[in-house]
Amino acid sequence: MVERRHLLDVDDLDREGIERILDMARSFAEVQRRPIKKVPSLRGKTVANLFYEPSTRTRLSFELAAKRLSADVLNFTASASSVQKGESLKDTALTLEAMGVDAVVVRHPVAGTPWLLRKWINATILNAGDGMHAHPTQALLDLFTMRERMGNLEGKTIAFVGDILHSRVARSGMKACRFMGMEVLAVAPPTLLPPVAMEGVEFTCDFDAALPRCDVIYMLRMQKERQQEGRVPSIEEYVRFYQIDAGRMGRARPGAMVMHPGPMNRGVEISSEVADAPYAVMTAQVASGVAVRMAALFTLLGGAEGGDGIA
Amino acid sequence: MVERRHLLDVDDLDREGIERILDMARSFAEVQRRPIKKVPSLRGKTVANLFYEPSTRTRLSFELAAKRLSADVLNFTASASSVQKGESLKDTALTLEAMGVDAVVVRHPVAGTPWLLRKWINATILNAGDGMHAHPTQALLDLFTMRERMGNLEGKTIAFVGDILHSRVARSGMKACRFMGMEVLAVAPPTLLPPVAMEGVEFTCDFDAALPRCDVIYMLRMQKERQQEGRVPSIEEYVRFYQIDAGRMGRARPGAMVMHPGPMNRGVEISSEVADAPYAVMTAQVASGVAVRMAALFTLLGGAEGGDGIA
Amino acid sequence: MVERRHLLDVDDLDREGIERILDMARSFAEVQRRPIKKVPSLRGKTVANLFYEPSTRTRLSFELAAKRLSADVLNFTASASSVQKGESLKDTALTLEAMGVDAVVVRHPVAGTPWLLRKWINATILNAGDGMHAHPTQALLDLFTMRERMGNLEGKTIAFVGDILHSRVARSGMKACRFMGMEVLAVAPPTLLPPVAMEGVEFTCDFDAALPRCDVIYMLRMQKERQQEGRVPSIEEYVRFYQIDAGRMGRARPGAMVMHPGPMNRGVEISSEVADAPYAVMTAQVASGVAVRMAALFTLLGGAEGGDGIA
Repeated sequence: MVERRHLLDVDDLDREGIERILDMARSFAEVQRRPIKKVPSLRGKTVANLFYEPSTRTRLSFELAAKRLSADVLNFTASASSVQKGESLKDTALTLEAMGVDAVVVRHPVAGTPWLLRKWINATILNAGDGMHAHPTQALLDLFTMRERMGNLEGKTIAFVGDILHSRVARSGMKACRFMGMEVLAVAPPTLLPPVAMEGVEFTCDFDAALPRCDVIYMLRMQKERQQEGRVPSIEEYVRFYQIDAGRMGRARPGAMVMHPGPMNRGVEISSEVADAPYAVMTAQVASGVAVRMAALFTLLGGAEGGDGIA
Repeated sequence: MVERRHLLDVDDLDREGIERILDMARSFAEVQRRPIKKVPSLRGKTVANLFYEPSTRTRLSFELAAKRLSADVLNFTASASSVQKGESLKDTALTLEAMGVDAVVVRHPVAGTPWLLRKWINATILNAGDGMHAHPTQALLDLFTMRERMGNLEGKTIAFVGDILHSRVARSGMKACRFMGMEVLAVAPPTLLPPVAMEGVEFTCDFDAALPRCDVIYMLRMQKERQQEGRVPSIEEYVRFYQIDAGRMGRARPGAMVMHPGPMNRGVEISSEVADAPYAVMTAQVASGVAVRMAALFTLLGGAEGGDGIA
Repeated sequence: MVERRHLLDVDDLDREGIERILDMARSFAEVQRRPIKKVPSLRGKTVANLFYEPSTRTRLSFELAAKRLSADVLNFTASASSVQKGESLKDTALTLEAMGVDAVVVRHPVAGTPWLLRKWINATILNAGDGMHAHPTQALLDLFTMRERMGNLEGKTIAFVGDILHSRVARSGMKACRFMGMEVLAVAPPTLLPPVAMEGVEFTCDFDAALPRCDVIYMLRMQKERQQEGRVPSIEEYVRFYQIDAGRMGRARPGAMVMHPGPMNRGVEISSEVADAPYAVMTAQVASGVAVRMAALFTLLGGAEGGDGIA
């Protein structure tokens, strides 16, 4: 049996491992700028996208990454599937394994699902988001985006702003930023902060006070449900204290950049003016996503057999 | 930044441009008859199908055209996507651009959407149908189908019959036929004709009187909704005056052909007898669709880099 | 016009034809164990999956089989399509034919649909399940799985257990096993047995009495609807007499194996203990599925033009 490598959360990598992926992603980003944006590195490998939650950008990003490595891609989404027929996740996973799928990219509303898959089947597992728990490739593409713009991240300060409590993006992102030696702030109303402290992360409810320290302002998507749940009094109130707009940007550190995992709620956590400003790097994040996922797939699927990855 | 070429409506082409695409489509049609129906012309390019309306034949036709040019294809349909999550069209488009997608094939219920995309993103846009407005590749494949059967189209007469008012197929088709020097009739009950005249198009409500002049009878799909809206008194009434059946075909010009963009409502705008007759060329239209879309994709994506397109 | 070969039911093959496909499947199974699980045999061919019923494993298995033969794959599922728009199956089939699709893999709730397609269009048809009628590739993969484990099947005994009446898996499977010279039992409550005898198949309601004769116990999925229809008094009652569990396995012939077409209803027709035991070969069945479907596609699409199939 082949030994499999996985990417379940950023903990699977140390700082060196992260930097190796980011370096490889840079090569793949360069491939993206060629007329023929494709390399034969994973020809003959099969990557299955197993998505139990709706998603556009993450699914397309993984699909494109796999195709640009010349892998074959199978898409399985819960709605178009036999979930109705009552097939269990385990049986679906065993089916994919039996078909000889090399990697399973999984998104699931239940935290921990990718760990179950790793236990159940002999295939490389990539976590594309599990419940409110982890989203490691998002964290890696965010690091890549920052590093390309700011160089060394050591000592830089990033604030994650918004619904930290329910955010897998924040959870993986904060860990990854700590690995790279960044200062990490979590900015949110008290009802949207985790009830216990997180190592190395400074919690605060005062966005305006935090702004002057920030090199990076990382906005999280605000779900309308939070109001119904009573976690925020109203969206208007939330906007007043936590939206990033041009006024607040004036108070951030000069040269600060704004990030967002998308899709944005324009007019809620971010004003349209900021969303379209040159210091907002969402487009670069999406572009980085393809390159970073190519690097992750290539690293995990032991590209050695298929060449050095960059033709 | 690369300069992008687009196909938003037939106006983007002059007669010479149309003929160049039709000539190239003939070469691609020849490729379709080979055992290996594939050429490497767009290897390493990515084509995204962005469909906000259900569609079978148009989506499959574009997908097959792209694959037979060896491009990678991403399918995005509104239902399987994060439209529910509230992602705006603009953000989706920016995502595709950031991923380095070379061409976006878009179908959308709102007229003008492809023009917005062209403004928003740096990618080649192909309009696969926008609201009641335009459907240029349908017009091109219809011209191709006619030209293959009748040779020079100059001076030939075509009647578009049915719901002209709401039809993007008719709108683009009538313009394209005019470009080629054809006589164009629009045949419909008064409630389904546009309220203002269209340049070079003769409006009439009398299908039977028009038939003897027609080389081509182009039937449009009759939506049941038109009856609910009160635009036609009843489907039976519509059938009596506007269905093409064997009796009416007897009155058309000898050798006249029947076209339909599909899917047909057999027994409504077309009798099954006519639909299955040799002068009905719907199958040829579908076959032309793949060849014409290969020609359009190849022309727009600057095939120069990838060879001459026909291996 | 090319002469087309089809796989509509196992009757399309004689014993020799079946053995030829199983032998070829063995070669393709070997390809599945290579790092690059892909051969160029069907490059430039197009396979359309036309699925009017939800399915995971069968659709993915055919898709993977086609991709590993380097064919292009078009997926058409009823929900994502213009079935809503009222396009008839015939028009959809004619569309696929006109597009130059080489093979259509069809699953449809109406028995006989693949035979209609064969009559309507000039393309190779593979039946992926039609109503309660037939499912020939399932039968072939089951034979393959048994043969790999037991060698010659002549004289071996298999019991199909459960809802024989409504099962296309049983119908094709029993015929295929007879072709290979196996003894075939159909085990079910009287309400779930076909009303008329089937040639060469022994009907019985007594699972426990049949067990000691069985080399293979083939469990069928028990649909909850059968209880609502009054065909079984209750699921509990069904479980008591027809579930395969560890106790019953103790009474089967030594070395007997358990098969199931999936997806399983753990705790209904099969206990979890049996489902996960080494004598349960569902995983091998799924793996065989890809290899057998590669062999079927390759055989039917006249691979001669594309090389010998195994690079």
